[in-house]
This record gives sequence, C-alpha cells and structure tokens, in this order.
Amino acid sequence: MKEQKNYFYLNGEIKQESDIRISPFDRGFQFADGIYETLRWDNGKLFQLEAHLKRLERSLSEIKINFKGFDDIENIISELVRLNNFSEHLLVYMQITRGTFYPRQHFFPPKEVQPTVFISVSPLKRNLKALNEGIKVILEKDIRWTRCDIKSISLLPNILARQKAVEKNAAEAIFVRDGLITEGTHTNFFGVKDGKVYTAPLSGFILPGVTREVVLDICKQRNIPVAEEPINQNELKDYGEFMITGTISEVTPVIRIDEMKIGNGKPGEIALEIQSALNKIMLE
Amino acid sequence: MKEQKNYFYLNGEIKQESDIRISPFDRGFQFADGIYETLRWDNGKLFQLEAHLKRLERSLSEIKINFKGFDDIENIISELVRLNNFSEHLLVYMQITRGTFYPRQHFFPPKEVQPTVFISVSPLKRNLKALNEGIKVILEKDIRWTRCDIKSISLLPNILARQKAVEKNAAEAIFVRDGLITEGTHTNFFGVKDGKVYTAPLSGFILPGVTREVVLDICKQRNIPVAEEPINQNELKDYGEFMITGTISEVTPVIRIDEMKIGNGKPGEIALEIQSALNKIMLE
Repeated sequence: MKEQKNYFYLNGEIKQESDIRISPFDRGFQFADGIYETLRWDNGKLFQLEAHLKRLERSLSEIKINFKGFDDIENIISELVRLNNFSEHLLVYMQITRGTFYPRQHFFPPKEVQPTVFISVSPLKRNLKALNEGIKVILEKDIRWTRCDIKSISLLPNILARQKAVEKNAAEAIFVRDGLITEGTHTNFFGVKDGKVYTAPLSGFILPGVTREVVLDICKQRNIPVAEEPINQNELKDYGEFMITGTISEVTPVIRIDEMKIGNGKPGEIALEIQSALNKIMLE
Repeated sequence: MKEQKNYFYLNGEIKQESDIRISPFDRGFQFADGIYETLRWDNGKLFQLEAHLKRLERSLSEIKINFKGFDDIENIISELVRLNNFSEHLLVYMQITRGTFYPRQHFFPPKEVQPTVFISVSPLKRNLKALNEGIKVILEKDIRWTRCDIKSISLLPNILARQKAVEKNAAEAIFVRDGLITEGTHTNFFGVKDGKVYTAPLSGFILPGVTREVVLDICKQRNIPVAEEPINQNELKDYGEFMITGTISEVTPVIRIDEMKIGNGKPGEIALEIQSALNKIMLE
C-alpha cells in the first residue's frame, strides 16, 4: 500500500495513517465483530446524517456493542475534511468494533474493554457514465447470513460476489434467495413494472438502505406507485426498468442483467426521474 | 487491554504485541476478508499440522487469496514458543487476510498487494472439569452463511451465539438449520443412538473439523459404527449420548441440551471411550 499522508480518526484522536495502529487482537480483525456506516459529504453538506446515525445505533444495539455515541460527529468530519484539504464529493466511513482483547475468545470481553472507533474521509468520484448510461449487473445466489439488516463488517460473501461481477465486466452483483431478489452487494435493487416501482420489503435479508428510504419518499411525493414486494427472478422479463440505489451508487439505472437486455437497453424514464429528484435533494 | 509483552509473528517478523500494527485498511479489519486456523501444541508436539495446513490452503483457495505458503511453519512456531517461554499446552492461531489497500473497495485489490499473515501462540488451559463431567449446550437457529466449510474470520454470528450460551451458563451453542443440527460455534457435534455415532455430513453448513475427522477414524479403528447423517432436532430424545469435538474442546461430553438432561446426566460411555482414545493420540 502507498503510504497514506491523509488524516483519520481513531478513538478520539485524529492522526496520519502511519500513526494509526489497530491491534491484531482487535475483534474487528479477528471476528468481524463490528459494524459500519458510509455517508456522503457533498460540497459541505452531509447527506442524511440523522438516518445514518440512527441505523448505526440500531446495528450496535443488535450486536450489543456498548458505544456511548460521538461527542460531535459533524465536528470530527469537518476537521478531517479540513486537515485533508478535501472538497466536492466525499465519502465518510465509520467503523466501530467491540474493541481489543487478549487472549482471543469468542464471547464478549469484559465491560471495561472500549470499542474501537475509526473514521475516514476520502474523495468520492461520482460515476457519471454509470449514472447517465446505466450499468450491467449479474445475479448471484444469496449465500449470506439472515441478519443482513445489521450493517456488519462481516462482508466476505459481498466481497466474493462483487469480485465476480467485476470479472464479468458488471458493476454490481444482485443476490437471489429462494428465487426472489434481495439486494445488491452494497446497493438496494428496484424494478419498474407497468409504471409501478417494486423493491424487496424490509427483512433480515436486506439492509434498510438510507437511499432506499429516500427513493421510496421521492416516489410517494411524485405519485409514482410503489410496492415493497419481492421481485421474482423468473419474472424479470415482465419489468421495463431496473435500478440500484445506494450512498455511492445514488440511483443508477440497470440496463443489463447477466445476458438479458432490459427494455431498449437504455436507462428507464422512471429511473432517471428518481435519479434527478435525488440529485436535487442531495447535491443542491 | 493489558500490554502484551508476548511475541507474535506478522508478515515474516517476530515482534512484541505493542510493535505489531494492523492497518485500519487491512481487509481483515474492514471486510472479514480472510481465513484462519487454530491448532494445538502439546508438550512440543503439533497435533495434525498437515491437516490444518491443508484446510488453510483450501480456505485460501476458496476465497482466492494468493498466499505462497509458509517457509517453515514449524520453525516459526518453535521460535514463538521459545521466545515466550511457554510450555505444556498451547494454542497456535494463524490468520491470513487479503492484505491492506486504500481506498476501501469491495472488489479484490491489485495482485501486488500482499496478504497479511499473523500468528500467535498462547497458553491453553485444558478444561478438565468439562472433559470429565460434561457440559451444557444450548440450541440456536443457524443464521450463518452457507459456506461454513470455509474457515473464514467472518464470525459475527458465531460470536453472538456463543455469547448467548455464556449468558445461559452453557459452554457452547449448537446451530440448528431447518430442523437439523449442523455444528457448534467452534465445535462439531456428535450423537450416539443405539450404539451408533451420528454427525452431520460434510457440506457448506459445517466446517470439516480436523478433530471431527480424527474422531471418525477412532470410531472406525474401534469398530464403533458411524453414520455421517444429520441429527434431527425433534429426535434428540432418541439419543443416549452427545459430545462436541474441536481443537480446544477435544471430545467433551454433552450432558444437557437447553433444559433437557441427556441420558442419566453423566458423560456417556462412548464419548469417554473416544475422548480417551483421542488423548492417547494427542497427548502421549
């Protein structure tokens, strides 16, 4: 890895990467015993900070990590932006693990062990080509655990599926569980059939995406009919449009699923309408 | 965490814990993108080293981490034992991740990124009470991914189940998937019915345990009938004995499952016979 001169936050202090040390006995490193959040900073504005912090709290609570909360997260992020001399579009990554304990043991360490809290801010290059022209995705069997509603760092299956997508010149892998589409490796998945927007309902099989929620709101505001109902893998041909949504992906039209061309092979109208509405909220 | 003066191995060097630094951008820390092995060292003897190294290689291959292999693993372990001035029973822990890469990205980093290789040796206190008197276990729904045959560090569900066991004064949580018992959070599970030993067959639902294999061999050698067939949760009362097996647990009799007493509430005869046979191979 190239030496990072950038500044990062670890456990109350802001330091350069080379001064940041995670112990090999950090439970994040040994057990994936932690959670994370990723949010956007666009030209000085944090997008949906409250929603992300609320989900962070829920994830922590579900896996019972005691974290007292950030003193002033906006201030920490501002400091990181200033020290790194960043601007325009940024990605804020926060990771909290159950802390460091030796010797290695599966069960929780004593209460006095403090969680590890890491925050990074890094430039985000918006993928305008994907946003404007749409992307190819592949379908992958959903082999993940059934608590995907927790935003845990236990991401190995997502990694493997995403890598497979890259090797097939696709931008994302979409998971299918028992014939039904759940979500992408780091996005939610939407389809449009006869003018109505469909996406998988909330459950242990998908992450309650912050962008997913914003998209559902946009649909309601614009009187676009919506159903939180699963999309069946065998009925993909009945849909005229698909899109993925996420903090990084925003609303990205899907124009190809494996070898199947969607609609006329161009981004769908409703996808572009929602994308444009999201841009207004997020970027202006 | 107390300062560890012990010595550990990281990427070719042996250092004290305070000098060992994992980057926050290690893919083990951010994605659970890695695998591990745990093996025993008893009075100078490594138990089943070849089997553990073979499984390590398989895990690496399944998740496509390119690791050239250890130059001389026995020598590394001997050095760690010597420097730490350890003796008797030890646990050797090896963890390999896909290395460190910035910025964070799901898909694999460039080929030149080297894996992170960490090895620790720590004292193992044999749980003689559990081995002699048996333990209580609890049943937990198996919510894990369906590639449990890979010994990945993606262990959050195991952590949560094991913690639940501890809170219920049990020694282990045993997973049940679709009504069938798969395995424990860090052990394999065996039952004895009418003199025949049962354990779940190899599949994506269980780890191919090294001790599990040794136990199957012991049964064959001693003419104890064996079936690699799943144990049904609803038929537990038909079994006279249960036991868990593993590198740390050896062969530990199970005398209680949740509130159900097994047999006469004492370790079963066959469990003790197999335990004693394992001791002979492992400790003498």
